[in-house]
Amino acid sequence: MWPGEAHSLKVKEILFQEKSEYQNVIVFESTTYGKVLVLDGVIQLTERDECAYQEMITHLPLCSIPNPKKVLVIGGGDGGVLREVSRHSSVEQIDICEIDGMVVDVAKRFFPKVAIGFEDPRVNLNIGDGVAFLKNVPEGTYDAIIVDSSDPIGPAQELFEKPFFESVAKALRPGGVVCTQAESIWLHMHIIEEIVSVCRQIFKGSVNYAWTTVPTYPSGVIGFMLCSTEGPAVDFKHPVNPITDSEERPLKFYNTEIHSASFCLPSFAKRVIQME
Amino acid sequence: MWPGEAHSLKVKEILFQEKSEYQNVIVFESTTYGKVLVLDGVIQLTERDECAYQEMITHLPLCSIPNPKKVLVIGGGDGGVLREVSRHSSVEQIDICEIDGMVVDVAKRFFPKVAIGFEDPRVNLNIGDGVAFLKNVPEGTYDAIIVDSSDPIGPAQELFEKPFFESVAKALRPGGVVCTQAESIWLHMHIIEEIVSVCRQIFKGSVNYAWTTVPTYPSGVIGFMLCSTEGPAVDFKHPVNPITDSEERPLKFYNTEIHSASFCLPSFAKRVIQME
Repeated sequence: MWPGEAHSLKVKEILFQEKSEYQNVIVFESTTYGKVLVLDGVIQLTERDECAYQEMITHLPLCSIPNPKKVLVIGGGDGGVLREVSRHSSVEQIDICEIDGMVVDVAKRFFPKVAIGFEDPRVNLNIGDGVAFLKNVPEGTYDAIIVDSSDPIGPAQELFEKPFFESVAKALRPGGVVCTQAESIWLHMHIIEEIVSVCRQIFKGSVNYAWTTVPTYPSGVIGFMLCSTEGPAVDFKHPVNPITDSEERPLKFYNTEIHSASFCLPSFAKRVIQME
Repeated sequence: MWPGEAHSLKVKEILFQEKSEYQNVIVFESTTYGKVLVLDGVIQLTERDECAYQEMITHLPLCSIPNPKKVLVIGGGDGGVLREVSRHSSVEQIDICEIDGMVVDVAKRFFPKVAIGFEDPRVNLNIGDGVAFLKNVPEGTYDAIIVDSSDPIGPAQELFEKPFFESVAKALRPGGVVCTQAESIWLHMHIIEEIVSVCRQIFKGSVNYAWTTVPTYPSGVIGFMLCSTEGPAVDFKHPVNPITDSEERPLKFYNTEIHSASFCLPSFAKRVIQME
């Protein structure tokens, strides 16, 4: 995925290493980024910077619509997105479909501050294929769907393809929103261009691209596609549902200003993506 | 500066390697980032992502004041900041003080698209110590000073200390602005906190922190201190001097929206920096 460059973290101790049905799963203690989860050789999260990813992928969609009630998470087996969804008191039901049960077990064992998301009683955990799960969802079920996937090579490949986005759109209510992990503007502009074009065909509300900084991801940034279905208009850049910060567990990264700022793209990316 | 992690670029060919009076200077051709300039083992610029740094450190200050005429660049021996300053037609005089003549020579030889900045007839090049140079500048000379330094270990150390900022403030006209390289919110919050506190004592106009993405810098981000002296108020977040984009040499990174967005900080940084 990233020829010609490498980012290395110093390993203090390998805590877990096993092959699941789908991928290689490694957990190690690093010297300066806390514990690190690695899937098929790619860093998925570190204790030090996971906040940026989890908070942005969750609150960008959920703060953009009033009163989200039913939320679906595809992927996200570490529980971090669930932890963030659970900050929203309007939410009544949080379904999650993760393909790899080992990720869930490993997160609960080694990343309790991330996997705490599973403790919310509104959460229903499904271990299985997200694509298959979506096919059985009645039309118009969810207010928001969050696709917290790994990269498009490996078990997550289908989550970057048109049929998947079609199922997502069907599972959303009119004016419902989806947020999917969408690679780096520095490294994968061609993948992003393709995802944007697919999304434009399918989501008749709006199609947007946002990005944030995550030091341990290649190129130090990660992007998100934010789309809405036909129905009540969603203006992602101006969040209507500000989150109430918790005193005991304050947000580390997300705030309303950074929400709006994350949709501002460098000129080279703007020219390619040509957002409305 | 960055214990416990490393970022590596694949080397195709080493093009230059010498020790100057001040530091080790290396130029290599990488496989995916073009040519790379390395000073004392730290990547200073790559052809692929230099646009983000050079455009932001230059246009953040220059687009924030009307009609900049006299600009001083401290450091910036590669010429990239000069290239960006020269886009501003109001500018009449561009002084630069770079400590290491070898950096200038190497840039002209290996990075012609960066060093093109030196060709502007408004540029006056001084090879010498920026701290000493500033002491001889008559009070109130410059509209803007840009400090394009390496990190605070090595020849640039003094550029992060109070006496230097005092000389900068003196050399600026009332309501003049300074922009200095100011490390990463992910890695060097303690250094940033200190710089902010020094700047608050010295710059009576306003003191702000902005950041941008540069994949080949540690943690993938770099920040800037943007301060103004007492006098006509400067609202850095709302640029008053939009840049006219050139058709033959369009801006790759900077635009007015990303200018404003760059001042939005993640919550963890906001809490420490506590900007006005």
